Amino acid sequence: MNRRMILYIMGMLLLSEAGLMILPVMVDLYYREGKFNCYLITIFALLVSGLFMISLKPKNKTIHARDGFVIVSFGWILVSLFGALPFFLSGEIPNYLDAVFETVSGFTTTGASILSDVEALCHANLFWRSFTHWIGGMGVLVFIMAVLPLAGGGGDLHLMRAESPGPDVGKLVPKSLSTARILYGIYLALTLIEIILLLIGGMPLFESITHTFGTAGTGGFGVKNSSIGEYSSYIQYVIAVFMTLFGINFNLYFLLLCGKIKDVLKSEELRAYLLIMFTAVLVITVDVNDFFATGAESFRHAFFQVSSVMTTTGFSTTDFDQWPDLSKVILLIVMCIGACAGSTGGGVKVSRIILVFKNARRELKRLLHPRSVNVVTFDGKRVTDDVMQGTSVYMCLYFVILAVSVLLVSFDSVDIVSNFTGVISTLNNIGPGLGAVGPTGNFGVYGWFSKCVFIIDMLFGRLEIFPLLLLFSKKPKSRKNTL
Amino acid sequence: MNRRMILYIMGMLLLSEAGLMILPVMVDLYYREGKFNCYLITIFALLVSGLFMISLKPKNKTIHARDGFVIVSFGWILVSLFGALPFFLSGEIPNYLDAVFETVSGFTTTGASILSDVEALCHANLFWRSFTHWIGGMGVLVFIMAVLPLAGGGGDLHLMRAESPGPDVGKLVPKSLSTARILYGIYLALTLIEIILLLIGGMPLFESITHTFGTAGTGGFGVKNSSIGEYSSYIQYVIAVFMTLFGINFNLYFLLLCGKIKDVLKSEELRAYLLIMFTAVLVITVDVNDFFATGAESFRHAFFQVSSVMTTTGFSTTDFDQWPDLSKVILLIVMCIGACAGSTGGGVKVSRIILVFKNARRELKRLLHPRSVNVVTFDGKRVTDDVMQGTSVYMCLYFVILAVSVLLVSFDSVDIVSNFTGVISTLNNIGPGLGAVGPTGNFGVYGWFSKCVFIIDMLFGRLEIFPLLLLFSKKPKSRKNTL
Repeated sequence: MNRRMILYIMGMLLLSEAGLMILPVMVDLYYREGKFNCYLITIFALLVSGLFMISLKPKNKTIHARDGFVIVSFGWILVSLFGALPFFLSGEIPNYLDAVFETVSGFTTTGASILSDVEALCHANLFWRSFTHWIGGMGVLVFIMAVLPLAGGGGDLHLMRAESPGPDVGKLVPKSLSTARILYGIYLALTLIEIILLLIGGMPLFESITHTFGTAGTGGFGVKNSSIGEYSSYIQYVIAVFMTLFGINFNLYFLLLCGKIKDVLKSEELRAYLLIMFTAVLVITVDVNDFFATGAESFRHAFFQVSSVMTTTGFSTTDFDQWPDLSKVILLIVMCIGACAGSTGGGVKVSRIILVFKNARRELKRLLHPRSVNVVTFDGKRVTDDVMQGTSVYMCLYFVILAVSVLLVSFDSVDIVSNFTGVISTLNNIGPGLGAVGPTGNFGVYGWFSKCVFIIDMLFGRLEIFPLLLLFSKKPKSRKNTL
Repeated sequence: MNRRMILYIMGMLLLSEAGLMILPVMVDLYYREGKFNCYLITIFALLVSGLFMISLKPKNKTIHARDGFVIVSFGWILVSLFGALPFFLSGEIPNYLDAVFETVSGFTTTGASILSDVEALCHANLFWRSFTHWIGGMGVLVFIMAVLPLAGGGGDLHLMRAESPGPDVGKLVPKSLSTARILYGIYLALTLIEIILLLIGGMPLFESITHTFGTAGTGGFGVKNSSIGEYSSYIQYVIAVFMTLFGINFNLYFLLLCGKIKDVLKSEELRAYLLIMFTAVLVITVDVNDFFATGAESFRHAFFQVSSVMTTTGFSTTDFDQWPDLSKVILLIVMCIGACAGSTGGGVKVSRIILVFKNARRELKRLLHPRSVNVVTFDGKRVTDDVMQGTSVYMCLYFVILAVSVLLVSFDSVDIVSNFTGVISTLNNIGPGLGAVGPTGNFGVYGWFSKCVFIIDMLFGRLEIFPLLLLFSKKPKSRKNTL
């Protein structure tokens, strides 16, 4: 393990965070709420730690798989521990663990909160809270990928592998630096368009920016206690559409920019994603008909909620915990399915679900004809056995972690539905669940132990299980042979 | 597909069922409740259908994999459809669908009931209801394996593969006929010992026999509304211990008979099974301490309930739906884990859970060292990639079926916990769930559509998903090449 190189990258990460924290300072100076010193103290701490870490110049710049996983896992934890300081120092979240919960929830783009009254926060904290979504959205580490190459070496490939959501992002252009830049260009462009559309709808600038951050990162932190419920239907539609857009594989936008519209339309994952969403919206629209005055209203709320939970954003326009069971179960299922691979969304990912079905079909064929060779294809390309194997194991681990987490949070005396949906919600980086952690509730009802479990689940969800799990695994005995 | 041979075996199956129905006739004649004619009518129907089916003599006696799966799937459905007739004809279950539900629940050794008052049934029906568990326990088809060889041919191997619970039963002796005989010998011996032990505890003969049938098949149909709750602690312990024994791989008993005690003790599955059970009992005993007068009582109820749900029997001595959430979640988890492969129990099976963990460990190693070769072993033997692949696909399909079933039963306005645990309970062939379908409730609250879903789940659980799924799959285009 190249410890010095790991430290070096961590240092760069903290310095980047310090840079990003200048924005909330400016927000505070504008609103004159006197909380900027909390951010300045944090920036100072970040600078000192960061500079110390990069001062230990690495001799060797090679990064191996295990290093990449370590960097990614500790990276998220470290930026969250520092990122929580302003909430804690400002006294608005007096418990540091709660502040960490809120920040992990932000960086992992979960949107689960321990706050019962969001509107009580100062503007700087509200801004930072939403900004963590935007930063987390494309991955803290892909973010500093523009900085990494300064350290030289080709090690970023391992980082990319550990960070990229979904089974395979696919390389758009040979160098991952350029890939990162293109993805960021698209991310930034979509962000700007949404802010403008929200401003056109009459939403104030501050709210437009924070809500767009929440949408872009598929996070879900809002600035109102009623989330998006009080805004006009125009605004609700804009956010619903953009949540759906941010849940799509960003490679497809790149293909679109290159004019390869046919390839986009042929994408199996995009088709399945839209089909699942469409079906869910349709069934829920009918199912909640009695809850709203008109069919159009039912449709709007159904579309918003499905888009929100399937892309694992977590905004809401209504308390869907009150909806009929059928609608709630549909929401729970699309929660678990999640968004497309290579998007900012979480969950199991549509492509994995497709692979599971294809794998099952192959297994059935193999049972009937043991000697036949069946090849699984995805978007016309052959899927290797390694990917299939990885997907199956991922799914199994996903359910094991789900079961264990539900077990652990059951030590708190909250009801089973809240425990179960709270775990689903954090593990899939959604935000709200049902029951006590529903759209009108929050995770404050749980004790410190359960909060830690939820924090770990959020990290598991965002890092797609494996990198974090490797931290707990033993070092291989014959490390030198294989590295 | 060898249709005539399939029909022939189905015919033999129906004739066997006719033979078995003589027992409830005798029970009715003894208790003079006048319901024997319902059984005689059914026997007549079985004889006519069975004789007709075997009269179409098959020209070719070869059975292929698909035929085996078809026989197993239709076999369970067919015997259930006929087996439900006495309940319906006697008027004690006036709705035929309900009668089929009860019979499928019996043959699949689930023990889920639509009856709110079991004690209202006549003795013949109570006997038949419990007897279906005993018959189902070792598999309707393994049961007639002693008859099958009369039809000649070596086709029984495919049947065995489709029927045997768990990833691999292992061949005890070269010929499956002898295997079946040995397994039945053990099954019968254990049954007799339990009946005797219950009689010693002062339980009347009829109740001893029916409860033993429920234990041996890990079914769970009782003859009292309070299940085992009103019996002495001696009886509760006897049943708890025997449930645990019937949840162990029968191969181990055979090894024990051969004096290979070391091999038995080294069994990874047995160790894991007992360890999980022990841990669950321990935690629940502490957790439910406030519910019972003494620690010994807490332990007895914890042991009974864990043994009952883990072996997927479903007897109960107390209403565990009232227990704290932690205990309920533990019960739900051991419900899903289930018993050992090669036992009469259901669930995912302990061996599959072990394989999932081993597979995950291998995947983690592979991520770190892509070029290394990692072999998974089980009980010291190498597990082939095909088995690993099959296990992973099984697990994924299991969760897909679970999610879809919960979705479908949500159309009924019962609460989420009942829907969810009802599906878990039927899919794992347990019996009771939580909420409306808890130990004091029953599945009568659901409508016909949900009952059909539960029936299919019970069959999926008992047939371990694949055979039933193959019925829904398309015929392969190039069938002749591969068969």
